[in-house]
Amino acid sequence: MPASAFEGFLSTPAMLALFEPASLVQAMLDFEAALATAQGECGVIPRSASTAIAARCRADEVAVDAIVAASGAAGSLAIPLVKQLTQAVARHDADAAGYVHWGSTSQDVIDTGMVLVQRRALALVDRDLGRLVQGLLQLSKAHGDAPVLARTLLQPAQVVSFGFKLVSWIAPLVRVRDRLRALGQSALQLQLGGAVGTLAVMGDKGDPVARHMALSLALRHAPGAWHTQRDEAASLACELGVLSGTLGKIARDISLMSQGEIGELAEPSGSGRGGSSAMPHKRNPVASMLALAGSMRTPHRVAAILAAMAQEHERGLGNWQAELAETAGLFISTHGALAALADVGGQLQVDRVRMQSNIDALQGLVFAEAASMLIARQTGKSAAHALLERLSQQAVAEGLHLRELVLDAVKADPHLSACIDGDELAALFSARHAAQRAIDVARPQLDALWATANDQDRAPPWSAWLPRD
Amino acid sequence: MPASAFEGFLSTPAMLALFEPASLVQAMLDFEAALATAQGECGVIPRSASTAIAARCRADEVAVDAIVAASGAAGSLAIPLVKQLTQAVARHDADAAGYVHWGSTSQDVIDTGMVLVQRRALALVDRDLGRLVQGLLQLSKAHGDAPVLARTLLQPAQVVSFGFKLVSWIAPLVRVRDRLRALGQSALQLQLGGAVGTLAVMGDKGDPVARHMALSLALRHAPGAWHTQRDEAASLACELGVLSGTLGKIARDISLMSQGEIGELAEPSGSGRGGSSAMPHKRNPVASMLALAGSMRTPHRVAAILAAMAQEHERGLGNWQAELAETAGLFISTHGALAALADVGGQLQVDRVRMQSNIDALQGLVFAEAASMLIARQTGKSAAHALLERLSQQAVAEGLHLRELVLDAVKADPHLSACIDGDELAALFSARHAAQRAIDVARPQLDALWATANDQDRAPPWSAWLPRD
Amino acid sequence: MPASAFEGFLSTPAMLALFEPASLVQAMLDFEAALATAQGECGVIPRSASTAIAARCRADEVAVDAIVAASGAAGSLAIPLVKQLTQAVARHDADAAGYVHWGSTSQDVIDTGMVLVQRRALALVDRDLGRLVQGLLQLSKAHGDAPVLARTLLQPAQVVSFGFKLVSWIAPLVRVRDRLRALGQSALQLQLGGAVGTLAVMGDKGDPVARHMALSLALRHAPGAWHTQRDEAASLACELGVLSGTLGKIARDISLMSQGEIGELAEPSGSGRGGSSAMPHKRNPVASMLALAGSMRTPHRVAAILAAMAQEHERGLGNWQAELAETAGLFISTHGALAALADVGGQLQVDRVRMQSNIDALQGLVFAEAASMLIARQTGKSAAHALLERLSQQAVAEGLHLRELVLDAVKADPHLSACIDGDELAALFSARHAAQRAIDVARPQLDALWATANDQDRAPPWSAWLPRD
Amino acid sequence: MPASAFEGFLSTPAMLALFEPASLVQAMLDFEAALATAQGECGVIPRSASTAIAARCRADEVAVDAIVAASGAAGSLAIPLVKQLTQAVARHDADAAGYVHWGSTSQDVIDTGMVLVQRRALALVDRDLGRLVQGLLQLSKAHGDAPVLARTLLQPAQVVSFGFKLVSWIAPLVRVRDRLRALGQSALQLQLGGAVGTLAVMGDKGDPVARHMALSLALRHAPGAWHTQRDEAASLACELGVLSGTLGKIARDISLMSQGEIGELAEPSGSGRGGSSAMPHKRNPVASMLALAGSMRTPHRVAAILAAMAQEHERGLGNWQAELAETAGLFISTHGALAALADVGGQLQVDRVRMQSNIDALQGLVFAEAASMLIARQTGKSAAHALLERLSQQAVAEGLHLRELVLDAVKADPHLSACIDGDELAALFSARHAAQRAIDVARPQLDALWATANDQDRAPPWSAWLPRD
Repeated sequence: MPASAFEGFLSTPAMLALFEPASLVQAMLDFEAALATAQGECGVIPRSASTAIAARCRADEVAVDAIVAASGAAGSLAIPLVKQLTQAVARHDADAAGYVHWGSTSQDVIDTGMVLVQRRALALVDRDLGRLVQGLLQLSKAHGDAPVLARTLLQPAQVVSFGFKLVSWIAPLVRVRDRLRALGQSALQLQLGGAVGTLAVMGDKGDPVARHMALSLALRHAPGAWHTQRDEAASLACELGVLSGTLGKIARDISLMSQGEIGELAEPSGSGRGGSSAMPHKRNPVASMLALAGSMRTPHRVAAILAAMAQEHERGLGNWQAELAETAGLFISTHGALAALADVGGQLQVDRVRMQSNIDALQGLVFAEAASMLIARQTGKSAAHALLERLSQQAVAEGLHLRELVLDAVKADPHLSACIDGDELAALFSARHAAQRAIDVARPQLDALWATANDQDRAPPWSAWLPRD
Repeated sequence: MPASAFEGFLSTPAMLALFEPASLVQAMLDFEAALATAQGECGVIPRSASTAIAARCRADEVAVDAIVAASGAAGSLAIPLVKQLTQAVARHDADAAGYVHWGSTSQDVIDTGMVLVQRRALALVDRDLGRLVQGLLQLSKAHGDAPVLARTLLQPAQVVSFGFKLVSWIAPLVRVRDRLRALGQSALQLQLGGAVGTLAVMGDKGDPVARHMALSLALRHAPGAWHTQRDEAASLACELGVLSGTLGKIARDISLMSQGEIGELAEPSGSGRGGSSAMPHKRNPVASMLALAGSMRTPHRVAAILAAMAQEHERGLGNWQAELAETAGLFISTHGALAALADVGGQLQVDRVRMQSNIDALQGLVFAEAASMLIARQTGKSAAHALLERLSQQAVAEGLHLRELVLDAVKADPHLSACIDGDELAALFSARHAAQRAIDVARPQLDALWATANDQDRAPPWSAWLPRD
Repeated sequence: MPASAFEGFLSTPAMLALFEPASLVQAMLDFEAALATAQGECGVIPRSASTAIAARCRADEVAVDAIVAASGAAGSLAIPLVKQLTQAVARHDADAAGYVHWGSTSQDVIDTGMVLVQRRALALVDRDLGRLVQGLLQLSKAHGDAPVLARTLLQPAQVVSFGFKLVSWIAPLVRVRDRLRALGQSALQLQLGGAVGTLAVMGDKGDPVARHMALSLALRHAPGAWHTQRDEAASLACELGVLSGTLGKIARDISLMSQGEIGELAEPSGSGRGGSSAMPHKRNPVASMLALAGSMRTPHRVAAILAAMAQEHERGLGNWQAELAETAGLFISTHGALAALADVGGQLQVDRVRMQSNIDALQGLVFAEAASMLIARQTGKSAAHALLERLSQQAVAEGLHLRELVLDAVKADPHLSACIDGDELAALFSARHAAQRAIDVARPQLDALWATANDQDRAPPWSAWLPRD
Repeated sequence: MPASAFEGFLSTPAMLALFEPASLVQAMLDFEAALATAQGECGVIPRSASTAIAARCRADEVAVDAIVAASGAAGSLAIPLVKQLTQAVARHDADAAGYVHWGSTSQDVIDTGMVLVQRRALALVDRDLGRLVQGLLQLSKAHGDAPVLARTLLQPAQVVSFGFKLVSWIAPLVRVRDRLRALGQSALQLQLGGAVGTLAVMGDKGDPVARHMALSLALRHAPGAWHTQRDEAASLACELGVLSGTLGKIARDISLMSQGEIGELAEPSGSGRGGSSAMPHKRNPVASMLALAGSMRTPHRVAAILAAMAQEHERGLGNWQAELAETAGLFISTHGALAALADVGGQLQVDRVRMQSNIDALQGLVFAEAASMLIARQTGKSAAHALLERLSQQAVAEGLHLRELVLDAVKADPHLSACIDGDELAALFSARHAAQRAIDVARPQLDALWATANDQDRAPPWSAWLPRD
């Protein structure tokens, strides 16, 4: 059950579940188990204690709700958790209880717990990024060659191909996936420092214990504690923000192309999807809506995480705690946006007829630059630009096609008519011609994206990140 | 159970409960009941239908989880809710079912539901604001006259009184409470517009129905639908941000004055409060920690709400939805900060001895301006400032008290010694004297704050806002 | 000359000039003049010194660039300014120089200087708000009755009137103007506290001096120094954020309605406006672009100001300084957005023909709810909704008008054809009818907005805020 | 002259100069020169035109102020610039004027101009990052071994070494420098797409022209236009936010350790540095202040850039423009923070005596964990923790040293006194001992940081980024 109804509305059950108390508590217990095991192996605590502790590190051994309820006054989630774990161990082995959380500190278990949860969260993100990329690439197979209006500043500009547009959606997704993986490699690291980061209590066994734990938890072994070195966590968070922005761009485009008056795209409909409680005829672009909503929430979470970086001394007061909460929210919002688009990406309905009729309705205006540049070779660019600007206005005012006006203007000018081939000029007013240009530009990029996307799918780092169960 | 463990950690059960799905769903059902009732009264739907619908508007008549689960694909929480409510009504009265949500739209029920929830949320905020203000005012009774260092740019500056500091904490709280109430008056308004805001389906009964509903729900009757007029909601959200900033300032000061090396304040300790899992001697300022964490999260929620204002046409795509989610988060974070401080405000432990010894340890440096200004009357300000700057450095370097150095310097200068009374000069180096000044400045302000705070407590608008149960 | 080319691009020369160093320095000198004058009147400093100081408080007496250049190392703009002013006074009256900035502190002069600049900035904002409101109200006179599509979630929904849309643009502007004025009344207050806020150096003359200054500078006399009580400044800043959001909503709508494929609105064109360097036919909505850009920048400035509220003790380290800089940026961005829209608001070109043809092109779909509700009276809402949903899909698939399909369906059903009058049903498919409903809804609101807007124009508080020159 | 006085106060002249109109205009002209040259080489335009255009691409050939002034109405800085450049060329060669900006679009020249400016901005950042790192590393040589209090949640926690603290400042800086360089490699790329990104006007010469330009401008050759693919620009911006957060952490620590009551660090003083206009004794930590102010401004610029990513279709309306302005502000604020710290980093005054006396003043409390863990081996951790908690309270209450209380408690307990060696126990209460632990932990990290920092200094990519002049 999500915290607020709106989180449930705007995110996914899978991601929400990862950050629910029970999930984080289990991850923290995984830390405690790994700590005890490593300390048993390295001779820091008795092996019998090590075994007894590890056996109790299961969320059902503690009262998760009570841990959360006590955390505020305690000042951290770790303190009540350690207390309950100690009691659980003591019920079986009173001696072992004295070795729970030995030489560690709240921040060790909380940060590592969050890292473990984030690894699974990143796996969800990575998987759905792959899903979205493949869906859009499939779309490019079927409709990459469709001529479609390019639009700048929300005005029709020229004609490109739908594949060309798809490149602008897919390429950033592929790059973000790469960067997220690289940043994950850095940020998914064990936190182990003890009270102030020196692991003083463990004597010369601190580093061996840390290495053992990193290995058993499959996390990076950091050169030292990073209690108040938050740059790697922050960089990872930022890239989630970049992902959200990328999703927002795609959703913005889909929603604009799905406007009733434009109708070039439609999200797949189906039972329970995108209807209206009041208006029977409505088909709302709900995946775009969810993606846009998510992409509007994440920049601010990133800002909060960056603003929380000035953590005092060896453990921050308020800022570390805010960072953790915002990080959870960042994953939750980002995945809501991503999953919504991944669900529909490959099933977008492409209306090639509307794409063409939207071009045709513009009376040749979107070919004005091409005509202008041809004429400019004779008149210079300024004069040609001015001519086309005037003829464009006339086309709009009189409802005529720009092609005819331009041909007439050239014919009427002896100098121009002598130099300019009317057929060549007329040919510029071809959507097919313009689209072919865009297809040619897009093809090598699409080919490269296919290759990279397939490589990425073949080698998902997150397969190693997921629990074996 | 909160969405993420960290929300549970950083907020209050009471506020979290308000935004949980069951609570919002009930508020939405309250809207549907009021709608049906008003429409029955006004002759828009049969009275029998009206009664039958209102009888089913209870959260236990619908499956809350299923509503949330279906909301993403549906595009809103309202669509599955209306569907379920319709089914619930139909189980008792098939004819009445056809009149559920008659002439209304998703946004009507969601916005009004949120307004109803926010009213209760504001009541919690208002109540705890009163609690915090009263606690701090009580503190001023006991310790308002204690001399304490004023510090600027984190450096000791001069001596003031603790009451003077309290004014700077309390006055903004009192003002924020006033502004929140005023903004609440505007923002707590019925949303009722139908599909696009015109209530077209209700014919000439639209306005009477709206008036009836506003009355029965005790909400403001807006001049029209505000589907994409979000300014009043945004202004209220902003003021919650101002409240959080105000709480952050208080928490920052408390935490700085509670530093072990300064020790002028301490948060109340007690079972389970502020201990450390590693360090037995620690007394952590956990209320300040919670307040700081909350105050670091809210500015970004405000930014998200402001950034979401550009809602398209008659209903926004993504931005409205993001606004709602961020508003919930804003209340949750703000109340976490507020309740944490309200819990400790009146019980702050004031160490007057440390306050005095911190003053004494500064060897009279904090009286340098006073001495400088006295001497400046003879030498001009620049010369006096330069003299005191030099003597201050000497005092630090040689571990001497500035008073003696200044008296010596005056004595050694025939012009100064002729004009300046050594006793008057020496008297400037009195913490009590400086504190008295601050007491005098603070007293009328504290008196005014007492009066206003008591007035506010006597007339809490939110008493009318709370459900009668 | 603006700091960055983009500030120059996205804001107005008038607002940029207000926050340029020379303007702020002059405002700070106005503070120093008022301080000296008040202190002369109240007997704190000699009248001769008072006069001599006030005579030098002109920006051309100091080297503005050198003040800015020295400010970083000094830690404030005030320190080098006071130094230079002291030297300027000394060149004429060595004795008087000793009384410059007597008993005051950096924050007094900087905060008050900023308040004086903000007053002029608010006057610009208020004036252009009035201009925009009047422009839009004029538009409602000419075109308020035009039927136009209402759109929800970026999909055509129903038919309203253009006046109904205008209400959703104007009403928030009128309310924001009111709130800005009220918040300005609070926030435009004198800052005078001396080193730590107690005005200790002035003895019992502190309050009289402050009252004198507040009167002469026409600022509010605050109950005390507000060095670290930033709530009133923050609330004012927030409302500028709300204004920007409101402008963003209007610009979003204009830009969407100006899309080439929709063409219901166009920004006025003209020399140098909205052309394209590449495409002769383009008419870009540049005012909307500027307004959207501004509205995307301001939420983050508000967040920065809120995040900077936790100012330590009696003067903040870094946060106060950041707040000032962000406040300047907030006004600059907001006014860029506002002036851009105010310049075009009244000259928007309304294409009633396109508005109608966009309605007609939807084959009656936007009347589905109306038809559904009529039929629902016989069948219940669910059945009617399902019928219309099916017929809407058929209309789209077969290119037919929904009206004919609905009439046929009713005729084909003996029960429905018995109860439903075909003419009444057909009449529902009238844009004029739907628009009339929206006109009726909008009219009283527009009338009220006219009245309020005229009242606001009659009593502009900012006329008192501007310098007499 | 900076836009606002506060930008001048909070940033550096060098960075401000880079984003001033004249600088950006020159960078845009560098683009135009490279475009014309490449097009001449590739046969797209006549070589004579190419030469004539390149000769005029100097900022003094155009009226920079007029370009900025005209940009708002024009909708971009490029349109008036191209117009002026065309006129400048025409004054010398009317035919060549027709080939200015041939086949390109506003966004090409603006984005590439910004990339060129950002390259120089990154060089400033990189250089000062190196300066700060080296300064702090030098500090570690002299004072790395000094025992100093570690503090968690603003409370004294244990003893570490100053070198250990320095690692937590330096390590993130070194990492950020690496990431900034890598992200710079990606983001510093040529923008060249023509009207909608297809370079249609250049036919099959588009790619050769782009490659020629990338080579001559020493920019990355992108696989295609990135008009609305902003992820690489956004990722770079984010990392600047991470840098600012890292600086904020350092400045926060310095300012806290410089508090008068703590006095472990002091920023270097000197003429005009850190004085107070009111208080002669003040030594304000102004570099920390500037760094904190900068670090409070940048998160919100990052958020604005992320929120602006949803750029419509082939060119964004408002969002692209906002992104550019925020990027300029981001560099400006970040460099203000960085340069302030780089100026003082190596000259921080370390007061080893105060560091030690602050430890001593805590009556052994900070060794409570160590003692607890020794005793825990006999009693289990809970009992030991409880014992030390009790004794710590007693130490505070009675002003005794914890060491003596612990030794007494052990002696008084027959079981403990039999197992615990009093000398071993007493030895735990040694700051030197605790510091040695921290020195041992820090040494390999510091060594690695030295090596990496020197490597980074040896191979600054930005040396290739700077103009040859």
